[in-house]
Amino acid sequence: MTTKPVIVQTQYFTFDELRLENGEKLGPVTIAFETYGQLDARKANAVLILHALTGDAHAAFHHEGEKAPGWWDSMIGEGKAFDTNKYFVICSNVLGGCKGSTGPSSINPKTGKPYALDFPLITINDMVHCQKKLIDHLGIEQLLTVVGGSMGGQQALSWLVNYPKSIRSAIPIATTARHSPQQIAFNEAGRLAIMADPLWNSGHYYEGKPPDKGLAVARMVGHITYMSDVSMAEKFGRQKKWPSMGEKFTADFEVEGYLRYRGDNFVKRFDANSYLYITKAMDHFDGFAGKSVQDAFGHVVAKVLVIAFKSDWLYPAYQSKEIVKACKIAGLETSYCEVDSTYGHDAFLLEIEEETHLIQHFLKKILHDCEVSNGHKK
Amino acid sequence: MTTKPVIVQTQYFTFDELRLENGEKLGPVTIAFETYGQLDARKANAVLILHALTGDAHAAFHHEGEKAPGWWDSMIGEGKAFDTNKYFVICSNVLGGCKGSTGPSSINPKTGKPYALDFPLITINDMVHCQKKLIDHLGIEQLLTVVGGSMGGQQALSWLVNYPKSIRSAIPIATTARHSPQQIAFNEAGRLAIMADPLWNSGHYYEGKPPDKGLAVARMVGHITYMSDVSMAEKFGRQKKWPSMGEKFTADFEVEGYLRYRGDNFVKRFDANSYLYITKAMDHFDGFAGKSVQDAFGHVVAKVLVIAFKSDWLYPAYQSKEIVKACKIAGLETSYCEVDSTYGHDAFLLEIEEETHLIQHFLKKILHDCEVSNGHKK
Repeated sequence: MTTKPVIVQTQYFTFDELRLENGEKLGPVTIAFETYGQLDARKANAVLILHALTGDAHAAFHHEGEKAPGWWDSMIGEGKAFDTNKYFVICSNVLGGCKGSTGPSSINPKTGKPYALDFPLITINDMVHCQKKLIDHLGIEQLLTVVGGSMGGQQALSWLVNYPKSIRSAIPIATTARHSPQQIAFNEAGRLAIMADPLWNSGHYYEGKPPDKGLAVARMVGHITYMSDVSMAEKFGRQKKWPSMGEKFTADFEVEGYLRYRGDNFVKRFDANSYLYITKAMDHFDGFAGKSVQDAFGHVVAKVLVIAFKSDWLYPAYQSKEIVKACKIAGLETSYCEVDSTYGHDAFLLEIEEETHLIQHFLKKILHDCEVSNGHKK
Repeated sequence: MTTKPVIVQTQYFTFDELRLENGEKLGPVTIAFETYGQLDARKANAVLILHALTGDAHAAFHHEGEKAPGWWDSMIGEGKAFDTNKYFVICSNVLGGCKGSTGPSSINPKTGKPYALDFPLITINDMVHCQKKLIDHLGIEQLLTVVGGSMGGQQALSWLVNYPKSIRSAIPIATTARHSPQQIAFNEAGRLAIMADPLWNSGHYYEGKPPDKGLAVARMVGHITYMSDVSMAEKFGRQKKWPSMGEKFTADFEVEGYLRYRGDNFVKRFDANSYLYITKAMDHFDGFAGKSVQDAFGHVVAKVLVIAFKSDWLYPAYQSKEIVKACKIAGLETSYCEVDSTYGHDAFLLEIEEETHLIQHFLKKILHDCEVSNGHKK
């Protein structure tokens, strides 16, 4: 284990143009990314980490001068699930994001102003196409694995369908092949909260104040769905935040104060239009690309590890089991584990010990199979 | 069964003053109510229906010229669960409401203007104290039963603790003795959505436009929690509402269109400040009045029927079981039924056949026991 923080810098890769799934062309496109560990001589040890709705390229290590490490630092580093002594770990910010990759807050070269709603509607597949270009740019022919929770899991499924020969394995965690109406509805409530804020101004707020109140409500709704009834009860109970001072509709209970605080912090780091674009991409995603399971996964040789969490009611385990079933029908070598956690959907960020165990074991097998296969080739 | 609509009119009962749980005095107070059926000579056949968050006094029958009947019409009427040939059924709008009872949109006699946020914070117990005054006014000494779902169930529990001798029985449905942090959090998200709307204007919107957008978001969040993952999937699937016309962030999926439509309709009939006051009352409610179960329920002689629904994740069955456990510990005669429904929390409005069966059977027993007891007294 490392004792002093390892410093990492975000890098940027720009390419001229992306042909989007809807037929439109977007360019130039910049993708922000970070890497941890070293690419080996055979370029066979690369792992691509795929982030969730509000994540970014900063998955691990520390940015100079910052106290908090990246969002999945507990999984990436020496001796961890994605051991940086063994693997070359890459994480990039998704297309449509607001943390360095091209998105609605980026400058539209045609106008010299932020795209706002002139930014085209993007899809999970479009995000993955950008990641493929980044991987090509890094000279990597085949990834050891692609892995992510929630929307990250959707991207892992997209890799399976779109680039089956470019990955040795995929680890979709706490995810779904298709959003249910309930998942769409929660996202839509968030979008309407943003669009109800007059400061949203049909997306044109970059020269003024952003729709912070609407975005905070959206985040709050999201946050509730990321926790579980049990984890909230354990964390907050019915503790009062402070003695009632007679003021009405303040945060009386701890849970209210917490959610307000988190909402207020979130708006400092996230762009409301990115929230709209990315949630729409999630809602429209179809992990089987509208095809039969055979047609979607027929050419896949990658091995798959699907992980779900018992108390996750936003992406319930039955959705993961549907993915497993589809993979099995298509003849993929697929493992499934339902982790007994009370953390709800957030478990993919918190159940480190279980995930580490499962992933280390899975990657060891993938590496072993690679070596056997390479041995035969000699 | 009746064949042509029975017309009913809302009535109003006004009293001078209510001493609220927080010590403040409020007056005059008007309570809107409706009645169905006839009070018998012994005044022993009265049933009090208790409505949920956005309900009102119009529980059954038709208002002149209106197509839709009251909100629980399927349960109230000739031959129904609350058979109006047998029972005198009463339903009143809660204190703090906006459908005829005194609430934040009522005129403050001190200023001649709507109370807005000068309306005092009210509690579930305050609502019940108003109902008790109404029952006294109607000359009823003891109710055959008090019954309601969701917040109606909270009121039924409040009747048990506050007026144990004034009820022969209570039927709390799909409810809880105390809101969990998750339930508080969903209500808080709704409140913040309302208060984020600049038209809310710290509650002073009665002379201008109301905060419709914020209230619609609050309703939308609520609506999602009233349904279940399964009921949404059955109702909407991933049906697209209409072919995408290229406009961004419209309602692409049926579920989005439905929730937008319902939200837009809701704001026509509900007051945003009432939403704030009533949800706060629900969040602060403690069904055991901060006492031990023995102290809270020790004097209760009423019989209790607790009903929960399997797919109700907003008021999960474990909360109903906690009520049953408390009643049993205090020695109350208590029945419990968990109905196997996929409708989620809305089941209390939809599982009519099951509820009718359970309630008819329960009331028959209550009436039988009354007669036996009266027989003994002769």
